[in-house]
Amino acid sequence: MNVAANPPLAAVREVVARALAEDLGPLGDITSALLPPGATGRASFVPRADGVLAGRLAATEAFAQVDPALVVDWAADDGDPLAAGRPVGSVSGPLAPLLTGERTALNLLGRLSGVATLTRRYVEAAAGGTAVRDTRKTTPGLRALEKAAVRAGGGVNHRGSLSDGVLLKDNHLAGMTIGQAVGRSRRMWPGRSVQVECDTAEQVTEALAAGAELVLLDNMSPADVADCVSLVAGRCLVEVSGGVTLDTVAAYAAAGADLISVGALTYSAPILDIGLDMSV
Amino acid sequence: MNVAANPPLAAVREVVARALAEDLGPLGDITSALLPPGATGRASFVPRADGVLAGRLAATEAFAQVDPALVVDWAADDGDPLAAGRPVGSVSGPLAPLLTGERTALNLLGRLSGVATLTRRYVEAAAGGTAVRDTRKTTPGLRALEKAAVRAGGGVNHRGSLSDGVLLKDNHLAGMTIGQAVGRSRRMWPGRSVQVECDTAEQVTEALAAGAELVLLDNMSPADVADCVSLVAGRCLVEVSGGVTLDTVAAYAAAGADLISVGALTYSAPILDIGLDMSV
Amino acid sequence: MNVAANPPLAAVREVVARALAEDLGPLGDITSALLPPGATGRASFVPRADGVLAGRLAATEAFAQVDPALVVDWAADDGDPLAAGRPVGSVSGPLAPLLTGERTALNLLGRLSGVATLTRRYVEAAAGGTAVRDTRKTTPGLRALEKAAVRAGGGVNHRGSLSDGVLLKDNHLAGMTIGQAVGRSRRMWPGRSVQVECDTAEQVTEALAAGAELVLLDNMSPADVADCVSLVAGRCLVEVSGGVTLDTVAAYAAAGADLISVGALTYSAPILDIGLDMSV
Amino acid sequence: MNVAANPPLAAVREVVARALAEDLGPLGDITSALLPPGATGRASFVPRADGVLAGRLAATEAFAQVDPALVVDWAADDGDPLAAGRPVGSVSGPLAPLLTGERTALNLLGRLSGVATLTRRYVEAAAGGTAVRDTRKTTPGLRALEKAAVRAGGGVNHRGSLSDGVLLKDNHLAGMTIGQAVGRSRRMWPGRSVQVECDTAEQVTEALAAGAELVLLDNMSPADVADCVSLVAGRCLVEVSGGVTLDTVAAYAAAGADLISVGALTYSAPILDIGLDMSV
Amino acid sequence: MNVAANPPLAAVREVVARALAEDLGPLGDITSALLPPGATGRASFVPRADGVLAGRLAATEAFAQVDPALVVDWAADDGDPLAAGRPVGSVSGPLAPLLTGERTALNLLGRLSGVATLTRRYVEAAAGGTAVRDTRKTTPGLRALEKAAVRAGGGVNHRGSLSDGVLLKDNHLAGMTIGQAVGRSRRMWPGRSVQVECDTAEQVTEALAAGAELVLLDNMSPADVADCVSLVAGRCLVEVSGGVTLDTVAAYAAAGADLISVGALTYSAPILDIGLDMSV
Amino acid sequence: MNVAANPPLAAVREVVARALAEDLGPLGDITSALLPPGATGRASFVPRADGVLAGRLAATEAFAQVDPALVVDWAADDGDPLAAGRPVGSVSGPLAPLLTGERTALNLLGRLSGVATLTRRYVEAAAGGTAVRDTRKTTPGLRALEKAAVRAGGGVNHRGSLSDGVLLKDNHLAGMTIGQAVGRSRRMWPGRSVQVECDTAEQVTEALAAGAELVLLDNMSPADVADCVSLVAGRCLVEVSGGVTLDTVAAYAAAGADLISVGALTYSAPILDIGLDMSV
Repeated sequence: MNVAANPPLAAVREVVARALAEDLGPLGDITSALLPPGATGRASFVPRADGVLAGRLAATEAFAQVDPALVVDWAADDGDPLAAGRPVGSVSGPLAPLLTGERTALNLLGRLSGVATLTRRYVEAAAGGTAVRDTRKTTPGLRALEKAAVRAGGGVNHRGSLSDGVLLKDNHLAGMTIGQAVGRSRRMWPGRSVQVECDTAEQVTEALAAGAELVLLDNMSPADVADCVSLVAGRCLVEVSGGVTLDTVAAYAAAGADLISVGALTYSAPILDIGLDMSV
Repeated sequence: MNVAANPPLAAVREVVARALAEDLGPLGDITSALLPPGATGRASFVPRADGVLAGRLAATEAFAQVDPALVVDWAADDGDPLAAGRPVGSVSGPLAPLLTGERTALNLLGRLSGVATLTRRYVEAAAGGTAVRDTRKTTPGLRALEKAAVRAGGGVNHRGSLSDGVLLKDNHLAGMTIGQAVGRSRRMWPGRSVQVECDTAEQVTEALAAGAELVLLDNMSPADVADCVSLVAGRCLVEVSGGVTLDTVAAYAAAGADLISVGALTYSAPILDIGLDMSV
Repeated sequence: MNVAANPPLAAVREVVARALAEDLGPLGDITSALLPPGATGRASFVPRADGVLAGRLAATEAFAQVDPALVVDWAADDGDPLAAGRPVGSVSGPLAPLLTGERTALNLLGRLSGVATLTRRYVEAAAGGTAVRDTRKTTPGLRALEKAAVRAGGGVNHRGSLSDGVLLKDNHLAGMTIGQAVGRSRRMWPGRSVQVECDTAEQVTEALAAGAELVLLDNMSPADVADCVSLVAGRCLVEVSGGVTLDTVAAYAAAGADLISVGALTYSAPILDIGLDMSV
Repeated sequence: MNVAANPPLAAVREVVARALAEDLGPLGDITSALLPPGATGRASFVPRADGVLAGRLAATEAFAQVDPALVVDWAADDGDPLAAGRPVGSVSGPLAPLLTGERTALNLLGRLSGVATLTRRYVEAAAGGTAVRDTRKTTPGLRALEKAAVRAGGGVNHRGSLSDGVLLKDNHLAGMTIGQAVGRSRRMWPGRSVQVECDTAEQVTEALAAGAELVLLDNMSPADVADCVSLVAGRCLVEVSGGVTLDTVAAYAAAGADLISVGALTYSAPILDIGLDMSV
Repeated sequence: MNVAANPPLAAVREVVARALAEDLGPLGDITSALLPPGATGRASFVPRADGVLAGRLAATEAFAQVDPALVVDWAADDGDPLAAGRPVGSVSGPLAPLLTGERTALNLLGRLSGVATLTRRYVEAAAGGTAVRDTRKTTPGLRALEKAAVRAGGGVNHRGSLSDGVLLKDNHLAGMTIGQAVGRSRRMWPGRSVQVECDTAEQVTEALAAGAELVLLDNMSPADVADCVSLVAGRCLVEVSGGVTLDTVAAYAAAGADLISVGALTYSAPILDIGLDMSV
Repeated sequence: MNVAANPPLAAVREVVARALAEDLGPLGDITSALLPPGATGRASFVPRADGVLAGRLAATEAFAQVDPALVVDWAADDGDPLAAGRPVGSVSGPLAPLLTGERTALNLLGRLSGVATLTRRYVEAAAGGTAVRDTRKTTPGLRALEKAAVRAGGGVNHRGSLSDGVLLKDNHLAGMTIGQAVGRSRRMWPGRSVQVECDTAEQVTEALAAGAELVLLDNMSPADVADCVSLVAGRCLVEVSGGVTLDTVAAYAAAGADLISVGALTYSAPILDIGLDMSV
């Protein structure tokens, strides 16, 4: 088990409980209730496209919460590659609850594997020295699971919450210079990394002078990023953000950024279509 | 206020509370805490692209839960068109909580407006007599809000939960004919519409004979759909599902389907980028 | 196990957790705490009257949540008949938690078996072709369990929630004809059964013309019901509601109604007295 | 406002939130969504039978949680008598949410007024010196509200939870005499009233000798109760329980019991039918 | 297992779940995620000072909720004495979750053992006939666990909640005499012990005359307490409260009080430092 | 309002709701229910000792949740000094709920002001350049409120949760050197500050070489700390932890530590006794 890629267990349980509550309703699965008592089944998780697996814990939990008698097995771990058509796991047991849990399990598995898959594509495009980071643009209620899916895809996590670190944007500089704001941060939140969003080389210079641990270059071209990387010269981390796509990520990486943050990892990742095929 | 497009108020409150809890963490917004006490601000919601608005209630609630002193105003209703660059609402009041609530409000607004926007595109492509329907492929925890966003976009809702209606798929026909399953459903769940997924014209004939209220044609070509529509001849509703895209939806509509269900409405809708621009 | 008669597992767990929280309070069972450590016991569930069993899952869960060491066994399934004085199950293990869980288990078992028992009496009185249906007049917080108890008693379920189906009553026809309201429903909620409450034969005619799937005859006499059944002539389902009692249900069934809905099933069912007798 | 008859506010809110969640489902009230936007209404709470009011707070809260724009007014307080056909309050505002909240409000109002009404009948039958008490046989999840309804009806409350007081029954006397058990209770839970269930005069004598504050005479005849009352001679309270009915309560009261506890108050109270009549 | 010293199981689970949620955050334990996969460990709970154990269930639950694969063993029971440096239990299994759960387990164990230890010191100082009681000055959210820790330490519990018993203080006597208030209590809450806080011997006399079951002597000197004990002469219980310390508790006990209540047991108990030492 | 000293509003509401639920129980405040209807009152919050205020929001919320009709006013802000005997705020309105909410409000106010007061004493003893920091040794369930109280006292916050930052302790170095662990952290969690607990000057040297942003000197003497400060020479932050007391904090500050973390701030702070005095 890849510890680092797992979300906290309680978060998984809570997300699944909520998802099942909204999907079952007061009567439960009235269609599966038509099945003859005693019917059993076995089904395989089969990706319809290549990708990266994430969400195993959530899918397993979905079936367990519907009926503890269902058994789920996996042939791969979160973060492993998936090949279209090759089964990656199975669930077996009483047929009615198996069908009842199917949609919730697949909704989570497809969504999280979609995040991991898109992350992997960015990571591969960045090709090496530059890390790919998520943002706080996560799905409300699913942050812990989506951040874990980013890790499964080979990406790294930005702030988990607003408690995590200081990130000064334009709007936080109401009547303060960058230097004053960083100084204020050192006093109020000592021991925490201070990160400053910069739109221009002048702001980068100001942030460096103030001792920021990271400058976040917002909406710059790769050429401008390269200039700022030279300017910084290793004195702090350089992160790029804003509109980076799969087409442009390599250029930004080549420009020397340490990190590239991509909201789309969690905000606009297409799901990875994974189906559940019943064994005959 | 468009009653039909609104999700239950309690659902909105719960989603927002959960989203804020995960985004604020135990210390709250440590960056906004650097702001001078008493600072106030005003910001406008500005779409970066054309689209359809959804999620007003959720965005309003996000600010209200951070600080009841924040005032949110809207110039449009859920379901109204949005034009890139034209402000659609504003929030004003104490600056620190305004910045704290920003991401949660935008995450919800962008996601739900994305669902409404994609729905509207499908509805327009279907061009008239055919309704566009969502599925149960919603984001875990956000079903009530996403289903409302589909309505805002002009779409209609499929089952709210598994309690809602009988939808017989292959896997439910374990050892039963369609006729037997429909009959069983009539006895166990009388007064409910029975819908049957069909892969072939033979199954459609069987479902019709059994008295199904709707046949769900799965993964058929528009031509096959047209044949089934002729076969059905108005005796029940005809729904198309499976892989319908913006490119093909018009052809399916032209084939005479009453309904076209599209998982992508909630499963893979790109977010609609809506920003919050501070007034100078 | 009778799948169709079971409520969703999560609903059972939640109801039991809430019931125990309110019954144990902060100190727990201060009387049972007087028992000598190590005392064990065994007790049987013994009905004091004939009836129908429901609530097995809930009673089992009540003991499990107090102490996982308690073992509960059942000699019958939900929906099975109970004979006064004949034990239907047992619980054994540590004595203190057994006594602590007793009241919660019995409260649920008695209440749900009461619902199943009254339902069975209506079903038997209706004698055959007419189904007996519950309503939304369930105990707040217990809907999933009570609806399952109705199924255990041989009844069928009406709407699980307001999301489930369209049921037009007088008050919904504010300024609309039945035809207009049904038409509006077809557009907003296609694929869903539309049911119309009717007080007169004229309204039945109007509902039929509008294509309603079911007319709900409210507070009519059996004779009037028979007239409406003739009028409908099989073109839609006919349901009777309003003040039907055990004395009158046979007459309404004989009048040809397809369904008879009875609020009393969940609203006023006397509990079935089931005791817990300690073995000597 | 009758403070003593009110349940804790948070308990009311929680019960209502739960009830609405299960009644609205993910789509909300799909029938009321058909109403024309802007429609408003006014409706009166009208009892269909004489009785006693309880549950005002819960009914008010139900409408407020659906839509804060609804206004609820009451012409009577919990505990006041209700006359069949005479309106006791009203709700007015937007029509759609008014109809949405109706069933939840009435379910609570009818159920709680039913408890208060049955309690009042017992209290009146006991005619004076003897108090009528509830038990722990309350509806799971509704204890706080039902205990308040008992108070509204003029009854008094037994233990709120198992934390509240020591009540020694047969099963607690595993290998201990009454005297030993009472002694043990004095040491473990000093300052708390000890109550002992007695089946015979011998046990009453034993409990008295042990210094119990109350003896609970279980399933005795009025004559036996009178004997025990003489035996006790005011040295402790005498409570009667077990199968007391409206027909027998006067005899038990006449026998001199201080308290009569009646499980039926909450376990088997028929609802008081209260309707919501729309104003024309 | 000492039944009486255990809090309700559900209360333990809820406290632990809440504590872990706030300690893990959305990313979980990012430091332990650095550990090599497959690393395991074993650690012992070692008190750094003498004391009394409490909170075993909570500490066990903390590890179980992080990872069910962790095994916790105890060499002592709640209420047993602890010696500085002598291990009292151990936890073993996967290293990463072991370190993740450590702080939550120790926070609960140290805090609850601190309560038990301080209670034991008061109990020993009171030396015998006088019981030491807690108050409602418990940590918000931890009442059930802290009250159980008081029992583990040999103390007894005052009211579990405001529902538990009548305790008349000055402020409750708004315009009523003690006699009137006690009388009112007898009518509203018959069968419950009435306790009256008294500042003077006159009030004690008045409370006795009214038939109170207990007088709570507030902020009196040991000498005044002795006088009141003589005055009461066994007709009701005498409890002392208000500023009793470890230095003065013996004097109050010697003055003849039946009970001494000490807010500090839960309000100001220093934690008992218990560490978790990894085995080499 | 001191934004930085406030905990997230939702955290306050949740803590208060939980505290009231456990204190009110199913029957509510049965003593206050004896009060004559209509009685009102006014009371002042009066510190019994000098200190620092914290918990205003929580105390206000406690009364508001019991009865929205209660009005709370404050003459000081969190972080302001309190003088024994000088009122700092008041609550007025209906008397019964005022008395009901009193204990919950005071429990929170006393506890949080106790944390702020102890923090202030440490801050003043450290006398200037050295910041005083809390730890994760907070009360389970109260972290957000206690961390805010530390800020009110002039202290600064360590990690809010395990998600917040990397803090390498002995047990995390299973088979890794400090350099390897820091390197691994840079790859897995780039952009986050890495903090390393050191017991010796050698470890400090190793941590510096690895580029740690902070060394946490554990259980060193002031003299050893001074040596390490020289060794570090400003290249990273130096924090002291382990057994620092009010007596020794000045010496550690004088030794040049940037930060001193003190578990006792939240783990063992005596409450600040604040009473509620009724106005005559």
